[in-house]
This record gives sequence, C-alpha cells and structure tokens, in this order.
Amino acid sequence: MSVHLARGTRDFLPDAAARRHQVLDQVRVVFARHGFEPLQTPAIERIETLMGKYGDEGSKLIYKILKRGEGAARGECDLALRYDLTVPLARVIAMNPQLRMPFKRWQAAPVWRAERPARGRYREFWQCDGDIVGSTEPLADAQCVAVACDALTELGFTDFTVRLNDRRVLRALARTAGAEGERETSLLVAVDKLDKIGRDAVDAELASRGFEDAQRAAVWGVLELSGSNAELLEQLGARLDGAEVEQAVSTLTQVLELAEALGVDPARLAIDPTLARGLDYYTGPVFEVTVTEPAVGSIAGGGRYDELVGVFGKQSVPAVGFALGIERILLVMEELDMFGPRTDGVQALVTVYDASQRAAAVQAATHLRREGVRTDLYVGAGSLKSQLKYANAKAVRWVLIVGPSESAAGQVTLKDMEGGGQQTLPLEEAAARIAG
Amino acid sequence: MSVHLARGTRDFLPDAAARRHQVLDQVRVVFARHGFEPLQTPAIERIETLMGKYGDEGSKLIYKILKRGEGAARGECDLALRYDLTVPLARVIAMNPQLRMPFKRWQAAPVWRAERPARGRYREFWQCDGDIVGSTEPLADAQCVAVACDALTELGFTDFTVRLNDRRVLRALARTAGAEGERETSLLVAVDKLDKIGRDAVDAELASRGFEDAQRAAVWGVLELSGSNAELLEQLGARLDGAEVEQAVSTLTQVLELAEALGVDPARLAIDPTLARGLDYYTGPVFEVTVTEPAVGSIAGGGRYDELVGVFGKQSVPAVGFALGIERILLVMEELDMFGPRTDGVQALVTVYDASQRAAAVQAATHLRREGVRTDLYVGAGSLKSQLKYANAKAVRWVLIVGPSESAAGQVTLKDMEGGGQQTLPLEEAAARIAG
Repeated sequence: MSVHLARGTRDFLPDAAARRHQVLDQVRVVFARHGFEPLQTPAIERIETLMGKYGDEGSKLIYKILKRGEGAARGECDLALRYDLTVPLARVIAMNPQLRMPFKRWQAAPVWRAERPARGRYREFWQCDGDIVGSTEPLADAQCVAVACDALTELGFTDFTVRLNDRRVLRALARTAGAEGERETSLLVAVDKLDKIGRDAVDAELASRGFEDAQRAAVWGVLELSGSNAELLEQLGARLDGAEVEQAVSTLTQVLELAEALGVDPARLAIDPTLARGLDYYTGPVFEVTVTEPAVGSIAGGGRYDELVGVFGKQSVPAVGFALGIERILLVMEELDMFGPRTDGVQALVTVYDASQRAAAVQAATHLRREGVRTDLYVGAGSLKSQLKYANAKAVRWVLIVGPSESAAGQVTLKDMEGGGQQTLPLEEAAARIAG
Repeated sequence: MSVHLARGTRDFLPDAAARRHQVLDQVRVVFARHGFEPLQTPAIERIETLMGKYGDEGSKLIYKILKRGEGAARGECDLALRYDLTVPLARVIAMNPQLRMPFKRWQAAPVWRAERPARGRYREFWQCDGDIVGSTEPLADAQCVAVACDALTELGFTDFTVRLNDRRVLRALARTAGAEGERETSLLVAVDKLDKIGRDAVDAELASRGFEDAQRAAVWGVLELSGSNAELLEQLGARLDGAEVEQAVSTLTQVLELAEALGVDPARLAIDPTLARGLDYYTGPVFEVTVTEPAVGSIAGGGRYDELVGVFGKQSVPAVGFALGIERILLVMEELDMFGPRTDGVQALVTVYDASQRAAAVQAATHLRREGVRTDLYVGAGSLKSQLKYANAKAVRWVLIVGPSESAAGQVTLKDMEGGGQQTLPLEEAAARIAG
C-alpha cells in the first residue's frame, strides 16, 4: 500500500520539530515580556463565521468540512478550518465582553488554505500573530512594531528593516490620481506589486487600467520621494491633500518616536510611501519587516485595522496587529545557519551490554536522568555495535557502557562520540562529566 | 449578528491558555529527559490514510473535508482531520525508512472526532502521546510506564496507581470461557465496562451474550483474583492455559521489575486482570493510570500494539506507546488546585499619566523589560483611575506611575496592588524591587 502526505502538508521529524519548538519558545518569551497574553482558539469554526470575511478569492481557499449524518450525501458543510487567526480573534472579542481593553493577545497556530502548493507555500502552515484590541492610540501601533523587532532580535536577526506607511497616505494618493472606489483598489493592486515586478511593469499596468500620463506622474512623484523619515513625512504632507493625510503624518511621526523609545534601533525604521500591504483590511499605519539576505520578501508585518474586529458585534472595535512570518523565519534561519545546537537533544545513550547487564544499565539511566541528564536508554535488541551506530546516527555525544567487568568494579565506561576517547569511572563521575 | 463557537470546541482565554502551555512545557521536559524526540504531523491527512483504521464506529466520527473545485458539488472528500496521533505515526514510519529503530517519539496536538459533545467530551481536543517503535523488548514497555509516571509526578500528582494487564491474559481468559473470534470480542466489551457498571451488570451482560453459568464462573474466578502482584501473576499462570499466558506472565514480571528500576514507586504498580483498555488494537501488555480523587477515570494509559504501525508497510512493526490524557489531567489539576501562580504572567503595568508623561512612561517600560520584567504598558486612552482598574482586573501586582512630579525628580511611584502601599523611588530601584 503506497502512502503519502496530503499535498501541501509536511511532517516535521525530530530535528525540524525541535527547531520549531525552539523558535516558538523564544517568541513566547518576547510576547510575555511585552505584556501580551496567550490565546488559543479552535481550528474548526462554524462556516458562517469564516465565509465572507476574506473576499471572493479568500473564500475559495477555505477548507469546508462535510456535515455528519444526513447532509453529507448532499455535500452540505457546517464547519470550516480557520483561514487565519484574526477572524477567530474578532469572534472571541464579540463573545467575551468581559475582556478588559486594551486586550493584547498573541497566538501561534496552524491555519489552512487550499492554495496551489509551491516552493515555500503550504496548505497547512503556522501563523504567529500579536494584536492589540481596543486602542486607537499610536502607542499601540508602536508597541506592535517594537514586539516584532524584539522577537526577531531574540531569534538572532541582526540585519532587518522596518518599512512603514499609512493606508490614509495611499488613499490620498489615489485621490490625487483621480481614483476613488474601485479605481482606488485598482491603483493599490498595481502599487502593491512594485517590489515584485518593478517600476516599469507597474507603470504599464496603471496605464492599462486607464490612468493617464499626468495622473501616473503624480503617483510616481509621491512613490519615488526620497530622503530621511522626517523629510519624507514632510513631503507627504505637502504633496497630498486632506485631513486624513495630516492625521497619517502625525500618527507615523509618533509611531517612529515611540518605537524608538520602546527600544527599536531608529536606523531600522524607514518610511516608505510605496508600502501597500496587499489588499488587506488595513485602515491606518502599516509596516513590514524585511531582511536583506536572503531575498524572501517580508518576515513580519502588520498594521491598524479598525473595521474588522467589530464585524461580529454592534460597534466597530479599533485594533492593530502584526504577524511574524514564522514559516519564512524558519526558512531564513535555516539558510543563514542561525540555529545553535539543539538544547533539548539527547545528551547520553545508555547501552544494554547483554541481558545479564540490563538491570545495571537501567539503573545507570535512571541515575543520569535524576541528575538532569537527557538520557536515552537503548530499549531494542541490537548488539553493542549496533547500539553505537544508533548513537552515532542520532548524534548523541556520550555513550555509557556497563559491561560485566564495569559492573563488577562498580563503574561504567563513558565514551565521547564527538571528542573521541573513553574512560572507565564511577557512575556519579560520569554523570558530572556529561552534565558539566 | 450572533456568533458562536462550533459545538464541542473551546476558546482558551489567557489564564487557561497559559495553563495549557505550562502543562505541555513540563511534559516536554520529561519526554526529553527520557530520550523521546518531538514529532509533528499535519492535522489534515489523505482520507484513505485514515479510513478503515478505527473500526466502523471510529470511521463515522472522522471529519471529512470537501474537495475543492469539481468534486465539491457531489460532496466528494479527499482529506480528513486526524482522529488520533497513532495512525499518522504509522504513516511517518512507513514513509521514513531512514529513521533509526527503536524510534522514540512524543507528540502533543489536537485531534478531531465528531462525537456528541458532553461534559468533558469535546470534538476538538488535545492528545499527548509517547511511543517506542521497533522494539519487542519488555524494557520498551517499562520505559513507557516510567515516562507516564514521571510526567504525572512532574505535574504534581502524588496519588496515582498504575494498573497493568496483558491482552494475552484476556485472550486466554476468553478461551477458558469457550469464546473465540467474535465471542472473544463480545466478552472483552463486557469486561471493559466493569469499572463503569459494576460486577452484577457485567455478569448480566455476559449471560445475555450467551455465556453459561460455568463459563461465567471461570471468568469471575480469574477477574476476581486478589493478592500481591507476584501472587496474581502466579495465579494467572496457574489458572490459564497456553504458551501465550506464560509469555504474558514473564513479560509483566519483567515490566514490573524494570519500571521500578526506571524510578517508578513499586507501590503504585498493580497487576489487574480486569484491565481491558477498550477495543483498541493492543496485542501485549496494557496499562492505565488512575487517580483516587476526583473519580475521572484514567488520566494516562497505553500498551503494546504490534500490528498497527506496520499497516502502511510491507511488514509488521512492533510498537508500544501511551497517551497522557491531557484534557483530563488539566481538569483534575484545576479541581485539585494544582496550578501554582502563572510563571509567564504580567509582573508590572506601566501607566501613562497623561500625554505629557507618555515618553517617560514608555522609557520606564522599556527599562523594565530590559531588566527582564514582564511589563505591560498601558496603550489605551483611559484615565489613571481606569488604568488602575485595568491592573486590578488583570491581577497585575506592581503598577508604575510616572507623573509630572516624579518625572521632575527622576523617580517613579511603585504601587503594590497585592501587598498595598506605594513608594516613590528611582526607576532602577523599582525594577529591582519588582524582579526581586
């Protein structure tokens, strides 16, 4: 019988699983340091909770679960797999009015999308989100930027940039180019591709979408502004009209200042009028974190979305949040060899010399474990030779051998599979050597 | 718009989520100590991987995922949510011949079953499994018992019993009562209910299933044996016929001895000929861990199942494993008030006195965080009074206030929400007080 994984899903064998645990542990520490609370929501939601929240394209990617019993034959579905962690958060907020605002939560969990699998694109993948619900203050936006940066720093990233923009800047830009409503979206879709397809292709797309020469010139005049953050913000205020732009400039100015006060190296922070953050539901500041090498796109990003969290309630609920691109982060850390040695791996293998020595081996393993040594006891039926191969294959550094002569002398033989060499010594000393 | 969770699923709000994290952290440490490696498999599997592995009843409980595209209208399904962690393990073993045997892995993850929801029964719940694949040695069985006990001890359980039996004993018992094939299953089903419905009801059920007086007397003669573990094993060997029983008695004798050598208090270990462990796929020793109070049934259990892991391969693969009943464990720990204070909770709230003091507050929060204090910075727009209410509602012990007079003096006011009282002092001293 041939057997396969579902397409677009992965197993994580021990080394990979350990790395994922390690990264999530580090992230968890950072969230706790900043006062974000853990939240867990179920993987399955009522289908009506999810449908209609992700646009037409998104809805097609939702995995639907067949009804049990009668409806099954007709293909009826009542449940679905969560598509992200944001709509479930909105549901939690609506269902739990007792939650004290501002509510800061983080959640790391798998989500499912019926995408066409490709390199680095999976149908089951983890998201890791932090959100602050119930505050319109720029301090909340800055806090999100600061946690994202702190998490990346904790993971060992030293070379990353935070690009910031504000949706209200892009909306004003669209108005400048005479685009409102659907044509505003049309412009944002094109601008959003700038990173991927470059200026000329975007310009051609804008032309094909009916933006005239003068309108395109106005757009590029803003998108291609350069200068310091302060200069850029001043220019945006000068070139774009409306109270919304003034608010955006004031908010971004505060976010920059507060993010720095929250510990973010100001050299990392770059105002970027081209940053659009896709077609998402953002309403205010947006940000995206990129690494220079390797070129994998953004590894974190987020922004303010004041319309979504209230979707299940009677009133709108302000919110700002971000996602660490945990799958990409793992990929980059792998490529840049950023993982240290495993801190949870087996330190010592206790071999079983033969049946007569089994009890002595078991006692030795128990002793090591009590001394805090992560100890694998060989529980198979292999020869000593195959046990050493096993230790080697599993990259276990220390191997303990308790043969008849060692037993008789109240000692064990400790073999160093990395450094080479071995020594016969009392068990207590072996434990100290391994632990030390 | 009214909004609900899917039936049989739960949200875990911060305190509950933190407890789940805490329990899984402790369990992870124990698995690592015993040389078990982490493994992660996807939540969704190909439907043919799961179907036919859980019996007719089990198959009905599998959540099926509708095909995308063409098949959807016809109700076709190609994927399903995992029902347990064991069949996915069998798939991993079949797909990864490079894995070195014996392979010890643990996995904690949600599984899904379309059960009728009831108190303590959910449709999405976590399982936490440890398994050793590739060894027929009783040492492997004993190792599983030892890890289960070590995990429970680590979690703070002091009053639990490990009941042990062997499927081969029950098979021999069935033969003694003249039952083979389907009637053997019939007998096991009845015996399995002994804990729940008592002797008389089981006896009546056996009678109704056609077991005659003499046969039932033979059954009860074995099931109601009493005595020390050694006496019970001797009696089982004496009263039941066949090489299989001899093997079972020899295996159980070794498992008892080895579990003790692996650190299990022998007073916890009790041979129990009535232990059936449901209709599962067990082939050898089985065990179950129960707490005396509260009466929640077993909180861990497992056994040897030498037929299942090979189901996707060409040959059978011996395996022994166990599950920590993580949902029940959490329930019991809750009822017995076994959770200490949260170790990841917010330690201090930094308030924002007013707009003019915002920068000072942000800098104070950043300082505390750098000193390792888990610090919530108030990012809302509430008054100082409502910020104190917020701290109170969230049970944050220390509140920092940086008002204009404190700022001017280069100090902060530190308020102890638990002990009462407050003090104005330099920020560095406040940090030390909180951390200390």
